[in-house]
Amino acid sequence: MDFYPIAIEKLIEEFAKLPGIGYKTAQRLTLHVLNLPREEVDEFAEALVKARGTIKYCSVCGNYTDTDPCGICSNPSRDKSTICIIEQPKDIISLEKVREYNGVYHVLHGVISPMSGKGPDDIKLKELVRRINEDVKEIIVATNPNVEGEATAMYISRILKPLGVKVTRIAHGVPVGGDLEYADEVTLSKALEGRVEL
Amino acid sequence: MDFYPIAIEKLIEEFAKLPGIGYKTAQRLTLHVLNLPREEVDEFAEALVKARGTIKYCSVCGNYTDTDPCGICSNPSRDKSTICIIEQPKDIISLEKVREYNGVYHVLHGVISPMSGKGPDDIKLKELVRRINEDVKEIIVATNPNVEGEATAMYISRILKPLGVKVTRIAHGVPVGGDLEYADEVTLSKALEGRVEL
Repeated sequence: MDFYPIAIEKLIEEFAKLPGIGYKTAQRLTLHVLNLPREEVDEFAEALVKARGTIKYCSVCGNYTDTDPCGICSNPSRDKSTICIIEQPKDIISLEKVREYNGVYHVLHGVISPMSGKGPDDIKLKELVRRINEDVKEIIVATNPNVEGEATAMYISRILKPLGVKVTRIAHGVPVGGDLEYADEVTLSKALEGRVEL
Repeated sequence: MDFYPIAIEKLIEEFAKLPGIGYKTAQRLTLHVLNLPREEVDEFAEALVKARGTIKYCSVCGNYTDTDPCGICSNPSRDKSTICIIEQPKDIISLEKVREYNGVYHVLHGVISPMSGKGPDDIKLKELVRRINEDVKEIIVATNPNVEGEATAMYISRILKPLGVKVTRIAHGVPVGGDLEYADEVTLSKALEGRVEL
């Protein structure tokens, strides 16, 4: 590829390193950037460096933050007696959007996955155990509803129960607005199993 | 959206400004960037600024370049008597990959498109006319094979023919490796019309 000047080729390469972006898309993004006003490109570059430079993990819950502890952990109106366990920082966003949960979080930064060589020591479990004290009343395990997420949830409940803390798992069932026709058997079976009285 | 620290939110916004990238993808890209080593992020930012800063248009053909004239225009082994007209700089890459064309290019930076309010004065036509002299033997119009590309090709041929220069259009027909079953009627009709003796 000696068709583009080096500076363009380099930027295409950089874009192509991003997940889900192939050479063609990287090329399209690069040509878009070349047509932008210079200030906008500078702003983009600055946002990149700044985000990477100022963001760290909250020392309490493991969420992305620019202050330590993070906004949620340091918020006095959040209920510290309930900890919701999630796999990734972005799961916090999904849960916060519901605007119903007022507890705090604990980010595992992964799941137990023997297939990819990830054991209990590779996720933030020790940090979780260290947070458990008499003030903690409930641990809600909100790992993803797939094989690895379930296995991790089971593992966590086995570790935490001896510490005398209540461990719950988010409910499985048919999604609201969905159609029974398209629900798979396992989900339907879970939905039946978890039925509640009206 | 007050869930993310400002620096993260800002980077998501910047990614979301790129064409074809929505909020969800921008979020995914941002979280990917946060997990990269800091040097890699710096390199990305630098590539952005550098590409935008050092790249200009070739004063002869309108291609992206870091030297003026561009590598193709200044190459003594390229045949200056044939000019291939394309819509965008990226079309040069497509044609160069064929490794058969040895002439030079002229980038229109657009097409005539009354629907979007683009007339002949909004594309680099004057610059093209200025390049025509007795040394130029043929103009190959390689605008895209759609309504606007065809209209632009017609317009160019009407302008250049009085100057005594041969104007040709790239052939339309069934794509190599394609299947007649999937070719549309217009393409098939063009393929029949342009048949060549074997």
